[in-house]
Amino acid sequence: MKSTVKREESSVVGAGPWMYRFVEELYLICRSITGEGVRETLRRIDSHVPIEVHEVPTGTQAFDWTVPKEWNIRDAYIKNLAGERVVDFRKSNLHVLNYCIPFRGRVPLKTLREHLFTLPDKPEWIPYRTSYYEENWGLCASQRQADALRDSEYEVCIDADLKDGNLTYGECLVKGSTDEEVLLSCHICHPSLCNDNLSGIALATWLARYLTERNTRYSYRFLFLPGTIGAIVWLSRNENIVPKIRHGLVIACVGDAGKPTYKKSRRGDAEIDRAVLHVLRTRGSDFSVREFSPFGYDERQYCSPGFDLPVGSLTRTPHGAYPEYHTSADDLHLVRPDSLADSLSIYLELIEILEGNAIYTSLCPKCEPQLGKRGLYRALGGLADAGEGEMALLWVLNLSDGRYSLLDIGDRAGLNFRTVRYAADLLLEHNLLAKVRAGG
Amino acid sequence: MKSTVKREESSVVGAGPWMYRFVEELYLICRSITGEGVRETLRRIDSHVPIEVHEVPTGTQAFDWTVPKEWNIRDAYIKNLAGERVVDFRKSNLHVLNYCIPFRGRVPLKTLREHLFTLPDKPEWIPYRTSYYEENWGLCASQRQADALRDSEYEVCIDADLKDGNLTYGECLVKGSTDEEVLLSCHICHPSLCNDNLSGIALATWLARYLTERNTRYSYRFLFLPGTIGAIVWLSRNENIVPKIRHGLVIACVGDAGKPTYKKSRRGDAEIDRAVLHVLRTRGSDFSVREFSPFGYDERQYCSPGFDLPVGSLTRTPHGAYPEYHTSADDLHLVRPDSLADSLSIYLELIEILEGNAIYTSLCPKCEPQLGKRGLYRALGGLADAGEGEMALLWVLNLSDGRYSLLDIGDRAGLNFRTVRYAADLLLEHNLLAKVRAGG
Amino acid sequence: MKSTVKREESSVVGAGPWMYRFVEELYLICRSITGEGVRETLRRIDSHVPIEVHEVPTGTQAFDWTVPKEWNIRDAYIKNLAGERVVDFRKSNLHVLNYCIPFRGRVPLKTLREHLFTLPDKPEWIPYRTSYYEENWGLCASQRQADALRDSEYEVCIDADLKDGNLTYGECLVKGSTDEEVLLSCHICHPSLCNDNLSGIALATWLARYLTERNTRYSYRFLFLPGTIGAIVWLSRNENIVPKIRHGLVIACVGDAGKPTYKKSRRGDAEIDRAVLHVLRTRGSDFSVREFSPFGYDERQYCSPGFDLPVGSLTRTPHGAYPEYHTSADDLHLVRPDSLADSLSIYLELIEILEGNAIYTSLCPKCEPQLGKRGLYRALGGLADAGEGEMALLWVLNLSDGRYSLLDIGDRAGLNFRTVRYAADLLLEHNLLAKVRAGG
Repeated sequence: MKSTVKREESSVVGAGPWMYRFVEELYLICRSITGEGVRETLRRIDSHVPIEVHEVPTGTQAFDWTVPKEWNIRDAYIKNLAGERVVDFRKSNLHVLNYCIPFRGRVPLKTLREHLFTLPDKPEWIPYRTSYYEENWGLCASQRQADALRDSEYEVCIDADLKDGNLTYGECLVKGSTDEEVLLSCHICHPSLCNDNLSGIALATWLARYLTERNTRYSYRFLFLPGTIGAIVWLSRNENIVPKIRHGLVIACVGDAGKPTYKKSRRGDAEIDRAVLHVLRTRGSDFSVREFSPFGYDERQYCSPGFDLPVGSLTRTPHGAYPEYHTSADDLHLVRPDSLADSLSIYLELIEILEGNAIYTSLCPKCEPQLGKRGLYRALGGLADAGEGEMALLWVLNLSDGRYSLLDIGDRAGLNFRTVRYAADLLLEHNLLAKVRAGG
Repeated sequence: MKSTVKREESSVVGAGPWMYRFVEELYLICRSITGEGVRETLRRIDSHVPIEVHEVPTGTQAFDWTVPKEWNIRDAYIKNLAGERVVDFRKSNLHVLNYCIPFRGRVPLKTLREHLFTLPDKPEWIPYRTSYYEENWGLCASQRQADALRDSEYEVCIDADLKDGNLTYGECLVKGSTDEEVLLSCHICHPSLCNDNLSGIALATWLARYLTERNTRYSYRFLFLPGTIGAIVWLSRNENIVPKIRHGLVIACVGDAGKPTYKKSRRGDAEIDRAVLHVLRTRGSDFSVREFSPFGYDERQYCSPGFDLPVGSLTRTPHGAYPEYHTSADDLHLVRPDSLADSLSIYLELIEILEGNAIYTSLCPKCEPQLGKRGLYRALGGLADAGEGEMALLWVLNLSDGRYSLLDIGDRAGLNFRTVRYAADLLLEHNLLAKVRAGG
Repeated sequence: MKSTVKREESSVVGAGPWMYRFVEELYLICRSITGEGVRETLRRIDSHVPIEVHEVPTGTQAFDWTVPKEWNIRDAYIKNLAGERVVDFRKSNLHVLNYCIPFRGRVPLKTLREHLFTLPDKPEWIPYRTSYYEENWGLCASQRQADALRDSEYEVCIDADLKDGNLTYGECLVKGSTDEEVLLSCHICHPSLCNDNLSGIALATWLARYLTERNTRYSYRFLFLPGTIGAIVWLSRNENIVPKIRHGLVIACVGDAGKPTYKKSRRGDAEIDRAVLHVLRTRGSDFSVREFSPFGYDERQYCSPGFDLPVGSLTRTPHGAYPEYHTSADDLHLVRPDSLADSLSIYLELIEILEGNAIYTSLCPKCEPQLGKRGLYRALGGLADAGEGEMALLWVLNLSDGRYSLLDIGDRAGLNFRTVRYAADLLLEHNLLAKVRAGG
């Protein structure tokens, strides 16, 4: 495992530009919680990793929720009296209130303003607004555009359909040697917004690509879902899979220049929580940690009390904490290839821990074994500094009593998981250790 | 409950001057652990709330203790050779050593000094001294008065009785809908000392008045007792009531300008401890917290190992921590109407938590319920700030799994109990929540 | 117990120079893990306390280890072409690579340098090096000596034996009234190094002397062992004794001027850990605490997972943390009589806690007993300051419910163990307390 990961990590830097190019490719598609934009996005993902696409008809019940109508949009604009498009969906798909009802007509300026959303504090930016569960029509514009409206009335066109159809989501199961699963979920419902969440889609796609080329213990289930309703629909149709899920992460906002941020699962001390914190702590660069809250992305559903899955969220600057969030400024400038690559390397290092963590028992529990006679230990004693590798050997031998996992040992010893794992492998080779069970 | 409390809290500010006036009224009465002063004090309390007065004869056994003799005093003085009263009980009842034996005679200055207590560091103040369990005669004076004694001998008179009689205490039970009790105890044995503890007597009286006008779940038992011996006598006569006590507080020193101080119960993490800390933390003003110690007021007895009741003590500047403590400077200037009102409001907010705390279970535990379709949630999504009320709805739904109480949820979510309770009530109305049990 | 300890502690200061003199006496003996140096050292210890000496033949199996050959050395030197001894074992026994094979011959300077160990950063100091488990010959010298070697070849002599023989260790069991044991272990394999570990040998010897003159509850087992192999051999031959060991400490580096340092046992919260921390905290001078790690002295073996004994290590500047460590500068200047005496006093205070710790139950658990009528309490009430002794009485009565030991009470109350113990003794005398069991 160790050497494999090392090789791939060096290629992670190379993956940054590729992931970035995929973000660019998806940027122009107008997505919503249903409709062709979602389907097109899944087709593009499928060109990298095989995706199983699910279509769930409008009206299908999913716990407390009902699958809504399918929304498709062709065009939208505001025309002035001179017939010029002063707000134009073709320039940015954020200009339409996402999931709004179709509308066509001439409206006085006063009425138009009631249906026009802006950001007065950020006069150049277009806000991202949705109206999923209340029927409304509306457009979004920059404050500068709104201020320029002087005509007495305007022609408004929202050429959209909101009809019975399907909710669409994609699933990619990378099978491992066991049925135990790691859930990796990202939302795919946002239109031209790069960090939230084309970055997450790109990272999940590349992570799935890496894992298909590798032998793993866990099976990795990637979900590409419309936010909230998609996760609820998936859970309602897959209650039989839920008991197999050992760990999970919601992937979002992984492309900006901010530091990594981990939001813990509802449990707070699940193995996934401890594994992510181990990775972030031992990397040596800044990061932040947030306690669970029932507000954010789809961890809300995975961590609802009826499931209480060990699912956290590993982002860079999180949900709502950067000024460009949910505006047209969350664009191709905000996301960076090196940030995507750095995020990917964190996810890979984490997977290395999940795959490699295990509980062992020493086969020589009474006193230390003689490492020297096995060539495991420098023969020349008496040095003050015995080296990190030797420390790892001693720690693994001392704490492997059937209670502590390698991750526990790394955390207690202040040693990197990789070093501890390396020591455990050496000791296994020399019959000084036996595996009690995989996992933590 | 919520609206009721709000109305009453607004009248709490108005209660400050009334409580202060009651302190003034009680100030001139000379109290001790037994005697007419206690009876007169209980009569005055009874003019506000109905008090059941208990008389326990001298010699009655109470665990390791025996009810002592009844002490009554009429007059006490030191007269100089010119026949002038240089120390005069009529000017301050602190001038007599509380509970001292009667004495009458001419004594040389040297002997007098052995029986005269002063505070050399505070030359203007008279100390408060007692001699409950050792027979002695004595007087207390300011250092200034003591320094002025120049005659060769003085006439001393302590016109008191120390005879078989009764120990007197008062009890006021405000019945709630259940037999579970909240114990509220204050000591009434101190003579002209305002903060310690006329302030506590006044607050307990007003709290009892409020509760008699309200429907509560708990029954509230107010005890007006002589310190130490009174609590011991009460416990020895009411062992059958002890198992009903769910929470308790000792009320003392609640009228000075200092910040609120909470001394935890012996258990340290009882519901009363967490509830008081929640109130103090969410009020936004300064406060302090002390761990339990077996030194202080009657929590010593309630928290003795044979009872170990969840009884803390909620004061302002505590026992022994202000310079005027147990001196004539603990007078009507030290206690302030607004401090009394502020203390009362803290007690009322605490009672609101005790009454309203409960454990619920979500009736929609798998994924979030759709709050939007019930009008519980703003229909227009996509905003970064969802508002505290919505957060409370989500937190209550997420943590209501039969393990967490509303107080737990408020503490974990960083939300005020009232907001959490409001959210729970809304969810109950919409059949999204069911009560598992009252309490924490 | 209390008065006894006090008397002896006053004589602890007097013990400093005596322990120092013993360090001086042992300093010139050349020790290794086997051989005459160990035997001679044990003979000198036996002149102070009776030592049972054990001889374990070469080749004996001890868990994963085998007792090595016996090493004895008579002389070693490097002679230049002029026949002068430029490196001379007779000047310092550190000049020989400890436990090295015999060698005699003329070698070119280049070859000699490959077998000559120095400390380039500390040009005046001779390093201490060993080669226990790899056959090698070598010498150690100061960098200054090494730099002065200019001749083309040198005559090398290591007049040593490495032959079948015995491993020797010493044991001193000071019997108490019970079979429960406290293990006190120190390594005796280092040659002319004073702090590490002639200081530990001297302290252990004096501690054993003190304990032989005292009635104790625990039996105290002192082990004088070669490091690592000695502890492993002892454990392999005494598995029946292991279950009797209640507490243990490894004694090393107790003579330098640094502050006391405690390294916790693997368990981290054993009674020994809490007792040592109590002593260090209540002494009022600086100290440091380290978590357990499987690197250091023989706690490595006692805390191996098959034994997991509650054994910590109480040193001054620990293992490897002072520049003179394992060099000729760990000499008679580094160790000081007053530091030895201070260390001894810490060990004695600790033993006082281990001996005196117990769990009691109050015989008057409902309310406080009336201390006044028993003369246990100042009769004159009403003072703000009640005194530490009275606080101890109240704390012991309040927490003695069969769950808390006196050590627990001292830690929770912030009171010195001795004060708490004194209070418990008073309460026992007055039939207010009964012992539940010795220990914590």
